[in-house]
Parts: sequence; C-alpha cells; structure tokens
Amino acid sequence: MAGNTFGKVFRITTWGESHGRALGVVIDGCPPRIPLSEADIQADLEQRRPGKAGAVATTRRKEPDVVEILSGVFAGKTTGTPISLIIFNRDVDTSAYEPIKDLFRPGHGDYTYLKKYGIRDNRGGGRASGRETVGRVAAGAVARKLLEREGIRVIAYTLELGGVRVKKIDLAAAEENSLFCPDPEAALRMEERIKEVRAQGDSLGGIVEIVAKGCPVGLGEPVFDKLDGDLARAMMSIGAVKGVEIGSGFEAARRPGSQNNDPILPHGFASNNAGGILAGISNGDDIVVRVAVKPIPSIARPQQTVNINMEPREITVGGRHDISAIPRIVPVCAAMMRLTLADHLLRQRAISFHG
Amino acid sequence: MAGNTFGKVFRITTWGESHGRALGVVIDGCPPRIPLSEADIQADLEQRRPGKAGAVATTRRKEPDVVEILSGVFAGKTTGTPISLIIFNRDVDTSAYEPIKDLFRPGHGDYTYLKKYGIRDNRGGGRASGRETVGRVAAGAVARKLLEREGIRVIAYTLELGGVRVKKIDLAAAEENSLFCPDPEAALRMEERIKEVRAQGDSLGGIVEIVAKGCPVGLGEPVFDKLDGDLARAMMSIGAVKGVEIGSGFEAARRPGSQNNDPILPHGFASNNAGGILAGISNGDDIVVRVAVKPIPSIARPQQTVNINMEPREITVGGRHDISAIPRIVPVCAAMMRLTLADHLLRQRAISFHG
Amino acid sequence: MAGNTFGKVFRITTWGESHGRALGVVIDGCPPRIPLSEADIQADLEQRRPGKAGAVATTRRKEPDVVEILSGVFAGKTTGTPISLIIFNRDVDTSAYEPIKDLFRPGHGDYTYLKKYGIRDNRGGGRASGRETVGRVAAGAVARKLLEREGIRVIAYTLELGGVRVKKIDLAAAEENSLFCPDPEAALRMEERIKEVRAQGDSLGGIVEIVAKGCPVGLGEPVFDKLDGDLARAMMSIGAVKGVEIGSGFEAARRPGSQNNDPILPHGFASNNAGGILAGISNGDDIVVRVAVKPIPSIARPQQTVNINMEPREITVGGRHDISAIPRIVPVCAAMMRLTLADHLLRQRAISFHG
Amino acid sequence: MAGNTFGKVFRITTWGESHGRALGVVIDGCPPRIPLSEADIQADLEQRRPGKAGAVATTRRKEPDVVEILSGVFAGKTTGTPISLIIFNRDVDTSAYEPIKDLFRPGHGDYTYLKKYGIRDNRGGGRASGRETVGRVAAGAVARKLLEREGIRVIAYTLELGGVRVKKIDLAAAEENSLFCPDPEAALRMEERIKEVRAQGDSLGGIVEIVAKGCPVGLGEPVFDKLDGDLARAMMSIGAVKGVEIGSGFEAARRPGSQNNDPILPHGFASNNAGGILAGISNGDDIVVRVAVKPIPSIARPQQTVNINMEPREITVGGRHDISAIPRIVPVCAAMMRLTLADHLLRQRAISFHG
Repeated sequence: MAGNTFGKVFRITTWGESHGRALGVVIDGCPPRIPLSEADIQADLEQRRPGKAGAVATTRRKEPDVVEILSGVFAGKTTGTPISLIIFNRDVDTSAYEPIKDLFRPGHGDYTYLKKYGIRDNRGGGRASGRETVGRVAAGAVARKLLEREGIRVIAYTLELGGVRVKKIDLAAAEENSLFCPDPEAALRMEERIKEVRAQGDSLGGIVEIVAKGCPVGLGEPVFDKLDGDLARAMMSIGAVKGVEIGSGFEAARRPGSQNNDPILPHGFASNNAGGILAGISNGDDIVVRVAVKPIPSIARPQQTVNINMEPREITVGGRHDISAIPRIVPVCAAMMRLTLADHLLRQRAISFHG
Repeated sequence: MAGNTFGKVFRITTWGESHGRALGVVIDGCPPRIPLSEADIQADLEQRRPGKAGAVATTRRKEPDVVEILSGVFAGKTTGTPISLIIFNRDVDTSAYEPIKDLFRPGHGDYTYLKKYGIRDNRGGGRASGRETVGRVAAGAVARKLLEREGIRVIAYTLELGGVRVKKIDLAAAEENSLFCPDPEAALRMEERIKEVRAQGDSLGGIVEIVAKGCPVGLGEPVFDKLDGDLARAMMSIGAVKGVEIGSGFEAARRPGSQNNDPILPHGFASNNAGGILAGISNGDDIVVRVAVKPIPSIARPQQTVNINMEPREITVGGRHDISAIPRIVPVCAAMMRLTLADHLLRQRAISFHG
Repeated sequence: MAGNTFGKVFRITTWGESHGRALGVVIDGCPPRIPLSEADIQADLEQRRPGKAGAVATTRRKEPDVVEILSGVFAGKTTGTPISLIIFNRDVDTSAYEPIKDLFRPGHGDYTYLKKYGIRDNRGGGRASGRETVGRVAAGAVARKLLEREGIRVIAYTLELGGVRVKKIDLAAAEENSLFCPDPEAALRMEERIKEVRAQGDSLGGIVEIVAKGCPVGLGEPVFDKLDGDLARAMMSIGAVKGVEIGSGFEAARRPGSQNNDPILPHGFASNNAGGILAGISNGDDIVVRVAVKPIPSIARPQQTVNINMEPREITVGGRHDISAIPRIVPVCAAMMRLTLADHLLRQRAISFHG
Repeated sequence: MAGNTFGKVFRITTWGESHGRALGVVIDGCPPRIPLSEADIQADLEQRRPGKAGAVATTRRKEPDVVEILSGVFAGKTTGTPISLIIFNRDVDTSAYEPIKDLFRPGHGDYTYLKKYGIRDNRGGGRASGRETVGRVAAGAVARKLLEREGIRVIAYTLELGGVRVKKIDLAAAEENSLFCPDPEAALRMEERIKEVRAQGDSLGGIVEIVAKGCPVGLGEPVFDKLDGDLARAMMSIGAVKGVEIGSGFEAARRPGSQNNDPILPHGFASNNAGGILAGISNGDDIVVRVAVKPIPSIARPQQTVNINMEPREITVGGRHDISAIPRIVPVCAAMMRLTLADHLLRQRAISFHG
C-alpha cells in the first residue's frame, strides 16, 4: 500500500517527479464555500523560491512555479469536490544527471529507490527530489485558508544554520530576510557560514522551529493519531529531516518532573514545556515543534560510492545545488503543520457531534 | 475520526482504560499459519513488569498481566482472521484518585481530555494512562513472531536516564539489569540518581535507543508513509515521548554534508549516519531511533493547578508512581518499532507484486 | 490488507469465530456523552434469537447471547474512547462438525477459506459463520442510540420468503410475528412453506426490505462513497445476500425516464423511485433498500462435493440448521443500515465545517 | 471525510467536473515495471465514445478525450510512484444549462448537491455528471494491464435495454455493435426501441452484465471487504445504477437450497449460481455481476420541479442528451470490476505473506 496520501479528513494526494512534465496535488475533503484563488496559493509557492539574499544559500535556477486550479472551485469558492492543483515543470534540463545516472549518490535515495521498486527515474531525484514538496506547499496554502477562518496562524523560521543559533526571536525580522531568520545578526553570521562552506564544496544543516498560534483545545486523536505523533510524522516525511521534538523535547529527558511540568493557572499554563500538547491533544497554548535538517547530501567534493553493479566509483555531484535545505524547507515545514492542523480540526468536528 | 488504529496492513486497534474491566487489542491483517500461543505474548508482557532492580524506578503495584487469545488462532496457528487479545484488570483500586478527581494534574491529559470529549474517566489516567500500552506490547509480540521469520530483530535499551549517559553498548548486559541499561556501571549510577530524586519527591526522564537488525532494503512508502516518518509517529504516540531522532538526528543539523553522508562501498555503507533509512526507505543497515522521554509528571511535591471550575488549587499526587517512565517504556518502544516494521514488510509485499 | 473494519468515522472492527471462546466488536469513533448501557445493546441482540414462532424457521439451539461492555463507557455515558463489546460463546459443541471436517460443504466458504488462508477453523463456519453477525448487531445498537438523537429510525422486515410475497406493509404487525413479516396473512403462508420445505430436507431464501425514516438531506460522499454504494456493500457483506437494490431497483431498468423520475414539489418529492438517494446523497425521503437472501446452503439432503484432497464425496449436513436465514438476518440488515448511516452522519459533520 | 478515493492498495483518486478545465485521476499503489503508454489507456477511453451505431442511443457531441500521463512512468514502465492521468475538456459549452441553472432537474443530483455542500457547480452536472467516469475508465485501463499479466479478463455487455432482453451471449458480437449487445438480433430490436422512445422525448434503462474470467481462488477480504461487497459498492457508485446482483442474485431468493447450491466436483463447480464468489472470496469460477441501470433522467418532456427557492416550476431539459446510459456505461462497469479485482489481487499478496 503506497503512501502518497496525507491526512484522514482533509486529505491530500501528491504526484510528480523533479524532471517530469508536471507535479500536483489533489485535495479531497476541503469544506465547501471557502474563497480560493490561484493567487492565494501562488503566494505560498513564492516562499519556496530563492530571493535576493536567498541566493546565498540556494541555487539560482529559475523555477517559475505557476499553479493552476483544475477543479473543485466554482465562482471563486470551493465546492466540496476534489481540488486538483497542477504546476508544470519548465526548462527541464536533465543533462547534469546524465554522467552520474548509474551511480548512487551518497545520502540520497538513489540506492533505496532502485532496490525497492526495481526501476528508478534517474533524471535528478525523481520522486525523491525536494521538488516533490511543491505539491505540499500548494495544498498547505488551501489549509491556511481554512485555518485562518478559525484564527489559527502557523509561523516557521530558522532557529539554527550551520551551527549558528539565533539569540532572539523577532518574527517580523524572519519575514524580511531570505533565510527566514528571526535574528538579523544571526542571519548575517549564517550567510557568512554559507559562503565559507560553499567555497569548501560542502553543505550545511540546521534547525527549523514551527509554531502554531491560536489553536483551540482538543485537537488530536489518541492513542495513535495524537497531534504530536501526526506532527512528527508530517515533519519526518520531509526529505532532509532527521529529528523532531515538541516543546522541551530532548531537553525534557534531562529535567526533573518539577521543572518540566507546566503549572496550570486559572487563565492558562504558567509555562509551555509541553509545546502546546498534553496526552496527544492540543491544550490551547502555542504548539511548538523543532526539526533537525541534515546537510544537503549533494556536495562538490569527491565521495566514495558504487554504481548500479555495486562496483566502487568516485562521484562528484555537479550541477546547481543548494548549500542548505534551509531556507527552502521552512515554508514546507509550515505547510506540513497547516495540513496536520486542518485535518485534525475537521476530525474533531466529526467526533464532537454531540458536543 | 478517532485514532485507536495503527498500521495499514498489519493493523491493530487497542481499547481499554487503566481502571476499567479489561484492556485489549484486535490485530487485523496478520498473515495466516504463524505459530502463536499465549506464552509467546506473555513473555513480552513480563518485560513491562518491575523486576528486582526495577523496583528502584517503578512502583511495587502487583500487575499480573495475563493475556488471553480470544480469536484468530486455530490449532496453534494464526488463521488470517482477526486476533483478539484481552488482559483483564485485577485488583483495581481507584481510591487514590478520589481526592483529586476534580483537579487537573499538571503534565497529564486530564485537562485536554475533559475539554476534548466533555467527559473524562477520572479513575486514574483512564485511556491516557501508560497502562494503555499493554495492548501495544501484546500486539508487538505477534509482530515479533512475523519479523523473526524474516530474520529481523528489534532491540531497545536505555541510553540515558536522569542525565546519566551510557558509555558503552553491551546488549547482553541490557537484558540483565532491570533498567535495560547496556552499560552496567552506568546502570548503577542511574539507580543512585533515581534514589536521590525519589527522596526529593521528584521524577526523571531519559533517552531510549531502539535498533532493528536484519531489516531488508526497501521498506517504507514515500512520500508520506516513509519508514522514518511512520517510526517517528509510532514513538511520539507513546505517552511520555517528546522527541524522536533517526541516525545522526539533531547532530546532523550541525555537521557539514561531507561528514554526514555515508559513503557507499561494494559491501555496504561505510557509516550509518542515516540510521538505516534513505529517502524514507530502509537501506539494509541497522535502523537506529532515539526517543526523548519526559520525567513522570506525577510527583510527590505540591504543584499549582486548577480544578474543573478553573479555580486555583494546590495538588500533591499521592498513590504509587514510578520515578521514571524508563524502564517500563523500553519494551513499549520495541513493540512500536516491531509493529511499524511488520506493517511495512506486508505493505512492501503488496506493492512488489511484479517484483 | 484484511477487511474486518467497517466505516470511516463511526468505525467498527469485529472479531471471533462461531466456535471460539468469544466474539466481539470494537467501536472507534463513537461521539462522547451518549448514554449507553448493556441493556440497550442486549435488546437488539434478542432480536437475533428465535422466538416461539421463530422456531418454525430457525434452530432450537440455546444461544443466550449476553453482551458485556469492557471499555469506553464511564458513569453510563460514552467517553469518546473505544467501546469494546464482548459476547462469550457458551455450550460450544463441535461434535456435529467432526464427521465433515475434511469435506467442503457446497454453498459455504469452506473451500474458499482454505484456499485463501491455507488453514481453516473447521469447527462450524468459523469466521464465515452467520454467528459472526452478533458483533454487527451489538455495534448497530450503539449506532441506533446515535441515530435516535437525530430522529432517524431504521426498520427492517421480510418482504418475501420462499416465494411468498407480502401484500401489505403493516409495520406494527412486523414486530409481532417472529418472521418480521408486515403482513400477518402472508406470515402464515410463509410458515406453511417453511414446514413443507423442512419436511423435504431443503431450505429457503427470501427478500428483506430495510427503510430509514427521518434521514436528513446530505448524507453520502460522492463519487465512490455514495450512500447507495456504501449501503450496497454493507448489505452484500452479510453472508447470504446475493443482490441489493435501492428504490425502484431492477424495476427501473424497464421503465422510461418519465415514469422513473420523481417530480419535485415545494414540499418534497411526489414519488420515491429514487429510494431516498439522488446522485449518491440522501434526499430527505425514506431510504429504501431491498436485499435478496439465498437459501441456507446447509441442507439435510445428500449433495455432491469433494474432500480437502479434491476427491469426490457425498455430504449430508447434519446438526441443527435454520431453514431460512430469514428471520435472523432481518435485524442484521437493520444493523448494517444503522452503521452506514451513523458513519455518514459523522462524515457529513466533518465536511460541513463551514456550513 | 470525502469519498473520491477507491481501493485500498491499488488506489485511485478522481477529480474534475463536466464543464471544468480538465478531469483526471491519480493512481497510487500500482506496482512498478508494468509497461504503460498513453495508447494503452486511450483504447479504453475510445469505448466510452459513441460510434456509428452508438449514435442511435447517445449524443453526437464531439468528445475527443485525449489522455496524458503526467507522472509515474519512466522509459515506458511504471515506477511505483503515483500515476497522474489528465483529460482536458474541449469545446466546453455551458449555454444549454443557463436557462435551467436555478431549477432542480428531477432524477439528478442538483437538489442533493446544493443541500449537502451549500454551493453547486451549475454548469451541467458538475461533479455529478456521467463525465466524471472518464477518470475511472482511464484508471481501469491501468488495472487491466495488471490483470492481464495474471490472466484475468473482464468482459461487460448489455443484457437488456428498454425491456428487450438478449437471448444468447455471443461475446464476439458484443464487440461488433455499438450497444455492446451480445445478441445481434436483440441489438436491432434495442435500436428500434431507442428510436421509438427518442421520438417520444423519453429515455430508457437496462441491465449490464460484467464477467471476470481467469480470476484465481482467494480474492476478497471477509467480513466487510468481501469481494461481492466491494463489487456491489463499485457498481452502485456509478451514477445511474440502482441494483446489483451476483450469480443467481434475486432469483436465489425464490429457490430452495438444493437448487441454488453449486455441487463441487473434483475439477470444479458443477454450476455457478454463486457467481464465482463464496463467503465473499472468489472461488476460481467466472465472477458474474449484473447491474440495473435506470433511464436517463434528462428527458425532452416537461416535468414538475421547483427552483432553488422551492417554488414550483416546469422544466424541459434541452441540449444534447443520451436516450440511455447504455452503452456508455458498459465500459465504466468493466473498469470498476477491473479496479476492484486489481485492488484485491494486491491485497491478497500482502496477506499471503507466508503463503
């Protein structure tokens, strides 16, 4: 049973490969009568594109991702029927992959895809490419429209990049620099670090923090579809993510209970070590998730690998590559949080039938 | 849509509350003709019980969890029909909860359950109790039988407890002490730490590592049901877990790509920063997962809270409580890894139809 | 992927075999705060039992089906957590099956179960027994409690038995005779027919009609989970059912459109050829379903068959057998309609989020 | 939870409206390495189009349905990733619907869609149009490729139209006339009947029979996902279908068991009243399904209805309309059988893991 569908009630199915004709997503379960236009979605797609400063970390490839709504919207509103979104690939150039098409790139899915399916689209990452996330972001924009009606807002930003950690969280600042960094000074040092590493032909990882504000109490379905469980899966399903934590996360493992419990006061929780989730259910506080992003595996340095006959080879991955999955991954993380919350918002409605 | 089912092909549904009549699990999708007896399952349940040294960290409550197979097995073998397992609760005593039944215990799900459902079983944690995991462990034992046939073995052990980190991994040792600690010296220091904290009326968290050996290449269903994503959800769905990482995990966020990529040699990977998973698919190497376990929220010290009318109250949680979710959580983590792998093993079979 | 779960939001999983220790069902997704007692469920189970006159068509086996609620109910109300219901088998006697355990009974699932699973519980029908429906009826009683709150009532009755068709529909009468026959005169003739056929060592089929009254407009999820599609599957999943029709059904195939369309008047539809469903969505009118029930395959006459080595044998099925699946199947049909409607009622709530 | 996905392992999600920009389907779960081209799919789409004689029953609208494969195929073979198929709408003309856009057409979903969703695409049937089935047929062609490898062949033909029943089944003949009628003489009388009814401004229904040959024993997942149950749902989910029967179907309700049971001989069943399915599992014999198709509700005669304000109106549905859903529905029925069988074929593989 294949796994290209996410969500149970607000449910998306993505499709498409990095160098195929198009990528897209079908959203089934979006409530009717929500105003929706291509411009709403386009705005979120733009965030995945490298901006001025973004060029520091990301490639200069032109990727004019233009979304088209093919179904499910009538007279500017959703109709309750499936919403099909498509983004055609343009200027597809597979020449950079030609010399290495029989080699397994370390850190990539080349080896596992070929072993699993017995066949692999070797024009770039194929389905395993980060480009696959364009469908997630497009669908996430529709989820955003749904959440906004409930006063729920999701923000994502760079907490750490290449070892440089932010020292303050200024959300307005995060929207102004191309690294989605909420600390302008840290942003400058991150850019320095990127330049250094680029010169070395290497790459960098980092940490992204995603916060949902305004989420009502009661989202999450114990015991297996807990909100934190579903968020962990949502984030870990993004290509470069190797770790997820909620609230105090790994730090909680080192604290005594007296310091990790959040006292409850008449007007809310005195602290938020829980990260907004108790027993798998949102508690009304900010939902706080952090994800560890590994360094981009495509590096300009030579690496040891094998070819499809398992013979030893050296590989140097040419072509245009980002130095870090950050900042591009930041809007993807936000989209996955939105998709998860939209799904649980609708799930809770079904269950609270006699509420 | 409620969430008490885990898995898509090897699928389990658990039920039961901490102080109800019984707890259980229905397994649908277990292949036929697998030898299965109550003794097979009982062995795994015993691991959840406090042993000699375990008494250091866990309560002394007698919990003789005896499993009964009610269906799905004929003449000692599974028949392909649903396997229903039941564990009756014995010596149920709810008196300790009587004085605090109208208070929300900090760090527990009391508040969120009441707000979500508008009703709450206030005899202990109800459905949110750690006792719920008995069904997971019972089902995990059936998954173990399936995995053993494929040569897959799952091991879980304590990596850190109360800030004490193991310095070596001796798997045989982990089975000999009641903390599942693979470093006998560290185990002694952990026990010291537990005694200290018990005297302070406080509690401790820690880190559990779970490893699967012998897993074939090809398990995991991109792009949303990736193996790492499903493992993250599986682990995060366990009550006290606040963080999950795969392979190099959060450490990957601080490394350059040249140090995080695993070179590929003709006979396998030169290192295992990937934790056995590339692009969401198992790569044949050990699968390595670590989870952060928060300190037990029930502590003997007074805490600030509110009652169901949101009026301020002080609470001291009496009764018998563990100091740490470790070691009891260790076999639960192993069970969740087994359930996830069993499901993906069968999923891969369906998809590899023309393999 | 096994198939013992029904429903998407109000979701049940049944388990158990005819001669095992117990049968049961887990209901996940029942909304909280619905009053529920064992007596509520017991009432529906009694309908499956042979009464005085029922003895005409059914066996005299004592089957004191007593249901126990094991979880999901607290202080007399559902809590939103899984509801586990169990019915223990009593007086299990497998001696009648001993002589034929290596023969495939014609018209039964003996052959297909053994070929599919490679193993078969040969004590009676095992999982394929009509006894499996006890879990459906128990869960259906919970669905009934949910539907009653919405003013939805489901009635099922015998429309035809052994070729005898009712000439009038008197719902009160249907509850008074043990054949659930809404025409007392037809009921007498049906009983005559049963006696005749019993004397011949043969069996009979019939037609059951199921009607839902008070169902709101809007239930059903095009294009694959249409209400009529889900009802068809629900009914066809009952052992002896070989045909399902909605509204004018097969008769519609012979009519011109001008006679099959239901004119729409300001206060409702002028006729109900649609059977209460248009384009897969309930239209507010009575939902009308009819199912064809095949004759019981266990007959006292000798039949040609083979043994498990595919060698020719003659079989005479001894033991106690009903002459017709009617009337026992009538409450099962009602239960399946209730389960389908309860599920769609909750599904519609999720989707009508911004209604 | 919306319902635009069909299948559990071989899973399709369709999207699109009759007068939108395009319609399509995403297939997730198709095994890799199956040769697949647009021509393979195009062939099945052609069957939905009116041919020479078909013009008798169907409209003359030009519908050059051209399918494009957007993903999931590389170098002429499936890759195991989602297969996205698209069919753009051409020459969309909504003018015929303009005068009646505020009226509910009797027998159509106009009323129920508007009540369910609170909004309706009033350009033709929107999502409720028969045009929606183009995605089913496209996906069915991919299922056909899978089934052919296993030697399974699905045939569908017209058994009855406007009261004219076939007297013989000549499968070769069925492919030669545009009514898919296996009896050339009956085909002529059907055409006569269509002409008559067309002159009267009325429409006709009929019965389609679908047969699968070469299906192995063992497909179907008791107790709720039985093969007959899933086939019933598959067929009933097609717009105009009001009844489904398997094997002897409604006729079984009138027979004694001795005449309805199929004796088992060493080399197979002596008869096929079961329609190839016993206890919900295929028995190796031909699978035989019949569906009742209601007359097209759009007729040229005036009918009573109401407008969206529930005020009485008379409606005459203009524009181009078929006289009967047959023959267009015939390939749709075949597609739904293929999709159901492909799904169960893969499901059985997962479950027969240790077969």
